Amino acid sequence: MLENIRAVLINTYHPGNIGSAARALKTMGITRLYLVQPERFPAPEATQMAANACDLLDQAVIVDSLEEAIADCSLVIGTSARSRSLPWPMLDIREGAARAVREADGGAEVALVFGREKMGLHNDELQQCNFHLAIPANPEYPVLNVAAAVQVLSYELWQAAEAHRTSEFPPASEAPYPRSREMELFYKHLEETLHDSHFIIKQHPGQIMQRLRRLFNRCRPEKTELSILRGILSSVQREIGKARNNS
Amino acid sequence: MLENIRAVLINTYHPGNIGSAARALKTMGITRLYLVQPERFPAPEATQMAANACDLLDQAVIVDSLEEAIADCSLVIGTSARSRSLPWPMLDIREGAARAVREADGGAEVALVFGREKMGLHNDELQQCNFHLAIPANPEYPVLNVAAAVQVLSYELWQAAEAHRTSEFPPASEAPYPRSREMELFYKHLEETLHDSHFIIKQHPGQIMQRLRRLFNRCRPEKTELSILRGILSSVQREIGKARNNS
Repeated sequence: MLENIRAVLINTYHPGNIGSAARALKTMGITRLYLVQPERFPAPEATQMAANACDLLDQAVIVDSLEEAIADCSLVIGTSARSRSLPWPMLDIREGAARAVREADGGAEVALVFGREKMGLHNDELQQCNFHLAIPANPEYPVLNVAAAVQVLSYELWQAAEAHRTSEFPPASEAPYPRSREMELFYKHLEETLHDSHFIIKQHPGQIMQRLRRLFNRCRPEKTELSILRGILSSVQREIGKARNNS
Repeated sequence: MLENIRAVLINTYHPGNIGSAARALKTMGITRLYLVQPERFPAPEATQMAANACDLLDQAVIVDSLEEAIADCSLVIGTSARSRSLPWPMLDIREGAARAVREADGGAEVALVFGREKMGLHNDELQQCNFHLAIPANPEYPVLNVAAAVQVLSYELWQAAEAHRTSEFPPASEAPYPRSREMELFYKHLEETLHDSHFIIKQHPGQIMQRLRRLFNRCRPEKTELSILRGILSSVQREIGKARNNS
């Protein structure tokens, strides 16, 4: 089930950390690595630190945005220091690992997102996640190196996968959540509709869409709920169009 | 209680790994680092990788042997790949972390021992441990970097300490186990006695003492049991002496 789980590293500055992260992943049975705009890659430091996990580097998918890296995922977990300014559902690490494994076992694509060495994840990236997860650590110095964070979280996934394999849980049913790209289509539809309704004025869009993304990513609508939402938007657009044609 | 726990790194080859290990420890509230014959230390790579954990490097204790590093410890846990040629009690990682925290909370000094990058721990070092512990990992590539192993195990200690703090367990009573140096005195006494009894012949000592160390470290006598064993040795020596004086 770990084959449905990918790690996404954003803007990694030191290529050695990419190599260490690849090694960390492979030791825990995770083989898929996505790199969003790495500072420098491929690089000899990455290869050196990867040791016998160079296959992960060779197969790493390099993309320009987090959006691309998670387009086909229906569960996206962002790692973050605890208690940002954003209030957001925080997953306990073991609960998060268990959930990732359970949904991956049901066929969902799952992404674990790791931020920059100095800055972590930006707010717009955190808002693309369904959950945030902080690795429990010494509050006086909770600053794990990014590859160390990858190691701890992937270790918990390995443990959760072992527990899942030997557990009595029935196999998960089909993943009920839409993929990230379906959510993007919904947001596009929503934004259009809000333009149509003049709730958003093109010249002054403000923070509306960001706030709505935050809301919907956090509440994580299921596929059927998303269909209902899309249906509502279509009906609103149709009625607005009719009214305008009639006026 | 984590202040009674130390990490011991043996013969670390890359100073960067010492720095990464220091950072890993500090993120999990562990502050004591012992280095047994590091290849090169202090070193700029160590300082660089330690980030804000340079205080651990400054305070690191550098010694010539594992024996010195653990002399005052009564619980010594060695990290090792699973299933060496030696059969030895393997602790589950979470069980091991809970035990380390419980005994440290009772006042015992506890050591976690990490081996060389390429070679791990040698057999004579493994035999100085009470327990061996393997980090659960992908059997096809279970080779964690040494600093990554430090990160995972210290993370489990942090989790165990949190659980211990909030648990209903009564505080541990005084640590019932002798310190490593008391075990060394016992081994010395045992060896003398076995010479006296001609069980060990000075010219051909063979593997006897190694086998006995392996036995007693593994079975981990309590303080009172060790006193009994010492008493037996003294009585044997006394009687042998008497018999020889009479002959």
